[in-house]
Amino acid sequence: MTITDSKIIDGKQLAKTIQLEIAEEVESFVGKGGKQPNLAAVLVGDDGASRTYVNAKVAACKRCGFISTSIHLPSHISQEDLLAKVRELNADKDIDGIIVQLPLPDHIEVDLVTSEIDPAKDVDGFHPESIGKMNLGWDTYISATPFGITQMLKRYKIETEGKHCVVIGRSDIVGTPMSILMSRKGMDATVTCVHSRTKDLKSITKQADILIVAIGKAEFVTADMVKDGAVVIDVGIHRVEDSSAKKGFRLKGDVKFEEVAQKASMISPVPGGVGPMTITGLLINTLKAAKNKSCA
Amino acid sequence: MTITDSKIIDGKQLAKTIQLEIAEEVESFVGKGGKQPNLAAVLVGDDGASRTYVNAKVAACKRCGFISTSIHLPSHISQEDLLAKVRELNADKDIDGIIVQLPLPDHIEVDLVTSEIDPAKDVDGFHPESIGKMNLGWDTYISATPFGITQMLKRYKIETEGKHCVVIGRSDIVGTPMSILMSRKGMDATVTCVHSRTKDLKSITKQADILIVAIGKAEFVTADMVKDGAVVIDVGIHRVEDSSAKKGFRLKGDVKFEEVAQKASMISPVPGGVGPMTITGLLINTLKAAKNKSCA
Repeated sequence: MTITDSKIIDGKQLAKTIQLEIAEEVESFVGKGGKQPNLAAVLVGDDGASRTYVNAKVAACKRCGFISTSIHLPSHISQEDLLAKVRELNADKDIDGIIVQLPLPDHIEVDLVTSEIDPAKDVDGFHPESIGKMNLGWDTYISATPFGITQMLKRYKIETEGKHCVVIGRSDIVGTPMSILMSRKGMDATVTCVHSRTKDLKSITKQADILIVAIGKAEFVTADMVKDGAVVIDVGIHRVEDSSAKKGFRLKGDVKFEEVAQKASMISPVPGGVGPMTITGLLINTLKAAKNKSCA
Repeated sequence: MTITDSKIIDGKQLAKTIQLEIAEEVESFVGKGGKQPNLAAVLVGDDGASRTYVNAKVAACKRCGFISTSIHLPSHISQEDLLAKVRELNADKDIDGIIVQLPLPDHIEVDLVTSEIDPAKDVDGFHPESIGKMNLGWDTYISATPFGITQMLKRYKIETEGKHCVVIGRSDIVGTPMSILMSRKGMDATVTCVHSRTKDLKSITKQADILIVAIGKAEFVTADMVKDGAVVIDVGIHRVEDSSAKKGFRLKGDVKFEEVAQKASMISPVPGGVGPMTITGLLINTLKAAKNKSCA
C-alpha cells in the first residue's frame, strides 16, 4: 500500500513557507528602520554533526535576511574562556540571539554555559528562566524543537483541545517541555508522558490521538503501538546502515514509518518533518529577540 | 464500613515528625556556629485566609527554631513600593528565605513580584528560574505543595517507579509542577495530566495507580473514578456549609473521602493531609537556604 501525500505532515515544505514569511517580515522590519536580526552561533570543537547543524542554521539565517555571526572555538578551550565569550556576546549590542551548539566537550559544564546566556538573547530557550516562563505560560523563547512542533500542529490545523496526546520520552530538550506545552492553555490536550521506566507502554501509546515520539531509538514505534487515525510526530533522527543506499546509510526516525503511516491519519516523516521545523523555531525566536530589543 | 487507620496517609503526624527533625537539625547547625534560619513572610492587606496561612507558617517556624520576620503591608500599597520591599529583603543579609503570601490585591502584578525575589531566597519556588531548574532536575527550591507531596510519598514508601500517576489539575502552583516532578528521574512514574478540557476523564483517572487531585472543586473525585487499590492524594481544601458542624462548615477536599477511601489502598485526608506537608516543604526549603548561604 502506498502512503498518500495527504497524510504527510511535510515539515520541509512548511518550513519553507514560514521562512519565506520570516524573510518578508525581516524586509518590512528593516524597511521601517529596524536592524537585521543577528544570530550568534558558537561551535566548540570539530564534531561533524554539530558542524552540519550549525551550517544549516547559518544557511537558514541567510535565506531569511538575518546576519549570522559564527564563532568557532577550539575543543580545548577552557570553561572560563567559553563563559567569557558568552558574556561578551551578551554585552554585544549587535547580537540579538545566542546559541551554543551542543554537545560540548566533557571538561565543560553545559549547565553553566546555558545559564550564562542572557535570557533576553536565549533563542534556544535552554536557560532555566526561559523554561520556567514557558511552564508558567509567560512570554518567553520556547526551545526550538517543541516550538517547531506546536507550529506544525497549528499550521496543519490539527485539533489538540481535549485530545489525548502521548509524548514518548522525557528529555529536557524535547519530551518534558513538549508535555508541558501540549497541556497548557492554547493547546489544551490531555497529556501522558511515557519513558524508559514505563510499564506496558503499548497500552498507553494506543490511547494517543496525537503521538509525539522523542525516545531516541531508531524505528522504536511500530504499528501495533498506534491507534487507528492517530496523528504521529516523529522527533528522532538516526543514521541506519544500509548498503543499498548511496551513502551507506539511510536516515530513520523513532517511528517505523512505512507501517505506522498505514494506520496514522497524519504523520511527519524523517527526514523532512520535525528537523526543518526546529530551525524555523529558532528563526522565529531570533526575529522576536531582534524586535523585542528594538522596542526596549 | 469504617476506614482503617492503616490506609490513611497522615500528613499531620508526618509533618510533626519531619518538623522535629528540622528542629534538631537547626539546633545542631546553630550549635556549630550557624545562624538560625530566618524566613521573611510578606502579607499584603487583610484577607482572613491569607492571615491564617501566614500565622500557621510563623508558628511552624517558631516550632523549628527559625526566626520569622513578618512584614504586614496595607492593601493599598503601590506595586513599586512592594517591589522595593522585596528588593530590601533580597539585600538583607539576615534574611534567608522570602515568601509573599498570595493572592495579592488586583492592582499588583503577581508575576513581577514573583520574579523580583532573589532565586537564592525563593523558598516558595515560584520564581521562573526555580521552576526551570526543577524542570531540568537541577538543585533548586521546589514549591512547597508539590515538594511536600513528594516527601509524603517517599516517607510512606509508596512505590512510584513505572507506576501510572494521574494528576488532576494543571495549575502553575500544583498540577503542572507535580506532573513534572512525578515524571522525572527519582520518581520515574508514567504521568498523565488531566484538566477541565479533558474528555472522558473517568476513563483516565481509573487507570491511576497514584491519583493526585488538585482541581479545586469540593468532593470532585468519586469512587467510580478510582481504581481499586489506588493511592489517592487530595490537595484541595474547601469550606463546605454544614449546619450540624460547630462552625457552620466542614473542611472538605477535592475527593469524596468516605467513598473513595473504601477503594483506595492509601489516601490522604483533608484536613490533616497535604496541608501540613506544604508548610513542612517550606521549612525544609528555608533551612536549605540558610545552609546554602552559610556555605557561600
